[in-house]
Order: sequence, then structure tokens, then C-alpha cells
Amino acid sequence: MNIYDISKLAGVSTATVSRVINGFDNVKPATRNKVLSVMASQGYTPNAFARGLGLNTMKSIGIMCADSSDMYLAKAVYFIERDLREAGYHCILTCTGYNRDSQRQALSSLMSQHVDCIILVGSTFIDKDNKNNKYIYDASSTVPIMMLNAALEHKGIYCVLCDDYTATQTATLDLIDSGRRDILYLFNSYSYSAEKKSSGYRSAFELRNMTCDERYLQFFNGSSQDIEGVCSFVNNLHEKGLNFDAVLASDDFLAVGALKYAIRKGIRVPAELSVIGYNNSILTNCSEPELSSIDNHLELLCQNLVKICIGTLSGESMPQKTVFGGELVHKKTTLRIEKE
Amino acid sequence: MNIYDISKLAGVSTATVSRVINGFDNVKPATRNKVLSVMASQGYTPNAFARGLGLNTMKSIGIMCADSSDMYLAKAVYFIERDLREAGYHCILTCTGYNRDSQRQALSSLMSQHVDCIILVGSTFIDKDNKNNKYIYDASSTVPIMMLNAALEHKGIYCVLCDDYTATQTATLDLIDSGRRDILYLFNSYSYSAEKKSSGYRSAFELRNMTCDERYLQFFNGSSQDIEGVCSFVNNLHEKGLNFDAVLASDDFLAVGALKYAIRKGIRVPAELSVIGYNNSILTNCSEPELSSIDNHLELLCQNLVKICIGTLSGESMPQKTVFGGELVHKKTTLRIEKE
Repeated sequence: MNIYDISKLAGVSTATVSRVINGFDNVKPATRNKVLSVMASQGYTPNAFARGLGLNTMKSIGIMCADSSDMYLAKAVYFIERDLREAGYHCILTCTGYNRDSQRQALSSLMSQHVDCIILVGSTFIDKDNKNNKYIYDASSTVPIMMLNAALEHKGIYCVLCDDYTATQTATLDLIDSGRRDILYLFNSYSYSAEKKSSGYRSAFELRNMTCDERYLQFFNGSSQDIEGVCSFVNNLHEKGLNFDAVLASDDFLAVGALKYAIRKGIRVPAELSVIGYNNSILTNCSEPELSSIDNHLELLCQNLVKICIGTLSGESMPQKTVFGGELVHKKTTLRIEKE
Repeated sequence: MNIYDISKLAGVSTATVSRVINGFDNVKPATRNKVLSVMASQGYTPNAFARGLGLNTMKSIGIMCADSSDMYLAKAVYFIERDLREAGYHCILTCTGYNRDSQRQALSSLMSQHVDCIILVGSTFIDKDNKNNKYIYDASSTVPIMMLNAALEHKGIYCVLCDDYTATQTATLDLIDSGRRDILYLFNSYSYSAEKKSSGYRSAFELRNMTCDERYLQFFNGSSQDIEGVCSFVNNLHEKGLNFDAVLASDDFLAVGALKYAIRKGIRVPAELSVIGYNNSILTNCSEPELSSIDNHLELLCQNLVKICIGTLSGESMPQKTVFGGELVHKKTTLRIEKE
């Protein structure tokens, strides 16, 4: 069944059928209805749109991300879109911001577009206390939900994440074992993965029978663009009497700000101060010396997420939770531990 | 006309109509065809998909960008998606890579999805010699094409860009007028906007009755992630006997690499060497001292592009070419010129 068959059955030219399909105005209502009726009765699917009309799927995937200009999230969207496109899907991207109401609305808008699956990029879409996650549970009864770097246990929800807890614990242990005692922990979010990181930091002290001093966990309440602000923030902590010989940060930009503080103060890195970031982004290569950072293997996570997404849509049974380990990448702001 | 009316006319339950609309399998073919015929004859549009079937538009916009993990392009996509979403459009994002065949294929794939408009983000989609641009001209006869940071003169093509030529000229003049004579120009692309920048660099020497030494235009053939590579590249130029007292770069990452070279060599910035980047991205704030850079007002460009897009789709007459000026933002790697 092609456009030629439809034109014969409807008794009009193929040009007219094409005009109807393409939604041009220059077709009489009666003719338009005749063509549409023939198309409907023959189950004819002229294009991707028509397939959405109850006959097949659009092969479209909704991607939600809080802020696609965030370097980390942008990379995730890039990897996910690339692999989905290769598999023949197209992606509808929605940037939701960090407000829960906007996120809820974005999800429902994607649902109304009848996407095959919705991918939540980043951990800002869920609440730790599980109070406001119903909108995701509800959606998962209609379409599969894939989550990157967050986890909810529920039918229809598939999660791929880095073990941020262990990665942060490992980095903290590395600092402790290299002789650091006063490790400032900088963070800028209370999201799902941010909480895992803080817990990992705390757990390291326990493992070494040390006490974690809560004054050393410091929340930076500013934009990820504001590296100068981080620098002042760290300087201020120092001036208020907080002494530290290491900085561990939940994001590279925080670590870059701390390193900037050290350079300006003439503090030798890593001899006097160790600094470790998170994400191993390009920011770590901009600073001099280059920043050690935790790599959470974003590309690997995204590739796996897409595999699970496609498998699920093909009716295969896929794992609901997939966890990868992170890796501390030593560059030039950490001391190497002498192996015995 | 609603789902209830359709169910009465087709003599089936609303649940059945709903099943047909949602593409569930548990409907007899004869019943399905009856419902589809009634829907077609009544011009009933149950949802966004159905509106695509020649009755209305999907209110969807295709966005093409070579690489959404590129920081600059990612920001552009973010601004464009944000403003389009506010105007009630959803965005289908396609990352094409830099290969022309893939770009051509991506464009045709978006066309087959019947998007209302296609936005080309970045200047890698067109050839300077206008030889391989036919695929864009062809598309523009079906849907409006919006171009960010590139320009083609053709009916149906709308361009919003920064005057990279004048911005680069201004920065070069600033360096010359602050006493610099040997200005290394680093670039990493031969795209439309890259060519404008190179020409702007050359033109500054002419304006000051100086000769532009072509050895000072140096192409870095590497990834934008490879800041260490840029550092070696610049060091290598120096070792081969090229002397320079300023570096102007077509992208911030190149300038960061050059600055890294200076810091390692103990060259004082800006006393002995001035450095200027392009894009005024977060990379300029990571380095110490912070990089001076050309800001091409990306958010403003994107806001205007979306306005023109929406205006065009509403049938308004919109400008086909909109050009904004760039701005040299002095931070800590340039000398201030004494005003007389």
C-alpha cells in the first residue's frame, strides 16, 4: 500500500494525497475527508506522524534534564542521544530546571506526546524521603522510565548509576592514608547522588576509626559558573579559623575554586594541600596544576542505559538497577601513597 | 467533537476508541478501521500525534547541532530549547557530528518527522564555497531554516549571528594598541565563523598599516578536550623559533592551553604575554590568572533566533539576517590601554 494505491482508491491524484498528508490548505474538505477515510480504512501509514495514530510507535524517546547547559548533564544527553539515534530513535529533549512543579509538568507533557520511554538524566527529579516521587511512579505504569544517576525501586523504572558512595569513600580514604587529617568536603546540592557522596565521605572516617567533624562539610550555595565565589567561600572558611590540609569536592568547579584559593595564598599543592574534584571534566585540565578527580564513567553509564532502554522496548527482561564503580584519577593535586 | 462523540458515531465504547487511539492490539481490525474512519471523517484530532496527520502541526522544532557535548553548542541548545518550550513548542534534538553526509541524513530525518522548523546550531553545516549547501536550500523550500552563527542568503533561511569578524579585529587592535607586535593566532576550525575570525585578525594589521605574518596563524588539529596538547603545541612553536608576545585564540580551550604553557615556562602574564580567548566560557574562570575573552552574547543570539522562528511560523515577516556585535571582556591576561 503506497501513496499511488491511496490515490486510486480515493479517485484523486497522488499530488492531492500528498497535500492531505502534508497538511496543506489547498484541498477541499470533502476531498480531504475522502483521502483520510481511505487511508484509515487501508491502515496506510504515510510517515512517522501517522504511525503515532494508533498504528505503531513514533520511535521517540523523551529526555528530561534539569539544565542541558550543565557540562556534565550536556555530556550525558550527548551520549544518550547518539546511541539512541544509531538505534533508530529520535529524542525529544526537555530541560526542566530544578523546580519540582516544572519537572512534573515536563513529564506530563512528554507523556502527552506518546513517547516510547522517558529518560531522566541526573538525580534532581526524585526526593530522598520518597514523598514527592509519585509523579514518576504514576508515569512508569504507562511508559518505561530510565534514570541516570538516581534510583527508585518500582516496576517499570530502570536505573543506571555510579556508586558515588564508594567512590567518595575511596577518595577520602586515599586522602587519609596519604597523611591528611583535616579534609574539607565541599558540596552544592542535596540531590540523591549528592547525599550518597556525603555519606561516603563520612563513612571513610568510621572505617579508619576517626571522628568525622561535621564542621568540615561545607555547602556552597551558588552557581556552578561562580568559581570566583567558591574561591572566596574557601578563603572565608580559612579566615574563620577552619584549618584543612585537603579539599574533596562533589563537583569539579568547587575543586577548581579551592585550588584557585591555594594558588593565590601561595599554598603549595599537593605538598601542603591536596585537592580532589568530581566528574573528571575538562575543568580539571584547565587549572595548573591539573586537578585529581573522581571519574564516574559517564559514557559507560549512558551506553548501558540506552541498551537497557532498547531491550525493555523490545520486550526483553532487563535489570532494574545497574551500578558501576567510580575511579579516583590521580593528576597533580594529590600525593601518591607509598605502597608498603 | 470529543472521544464520546466518536464512540457514538462509530457505535463502540469510549474505551475502544481510546484503545485505537493509543495503539493497543486488543481491537478487531474491522472495529479499528471503523473508528479510524469516523475520526478521519470528523477531522477529530485526539492528541499531538494525530495533529501531525495533515490536520495541524505537532508544534515541534528540529534542532541540529554537531556535538551537544561541546560546551558552547550545549549552552546554545539550552537557551533555544528553554525559549521554545515556553512558547509551547517541543524540540527534537539531533547531534550530527561534523561529517556532511551525516548532517544531510539528519536533516532529512527531521524533515520526515514533519517538524515545523529546523534550527542549525553552529556554523559547521555549510561550506564557504557554497558547493555543498544545496541540501539546506532544498529543505528551506519545505520548512523555515534558522541558522545560529552562520549565514546563507536564500528564501526561507533566517540567520542570527555574532559579528565574529569585527570582534576578532577589535581584540587584535586592542593587543596591537597595547604594544604587542607578535600576535600568535590559534584556531582549530575552518568553519564559516572560524573564517570570519581569521579574516578579522588579518584585517587589524591592515588597519594599523602593519603586515600580517602568515606564520602567526596556527591551526591546532586536536580535540577541544586536549588542553595539554595545546600547551605542547604552543611550546613547540616557541622552540621552533616563533617569538610572540600575545596569543589570540578562536576558542577558550586554545587560550587556556597557551596560558598553561606560559605558567609552566614562568612567563609573566600579562606583563610579558597577553592571552585572549573566545566565547567567554567557564574555562576562562578556571585558570589563574583568569582569561580575557571575547563574549559573543550567545544567550541574546538564541533569544532572537527563537523570536524570529516563532514570528516566521506565525506568518509574520521577519528579518533574514540579524547580526549582533561581540565584546572583548578584559580579565587578567591583557594589558589595559592607557586612554589619552
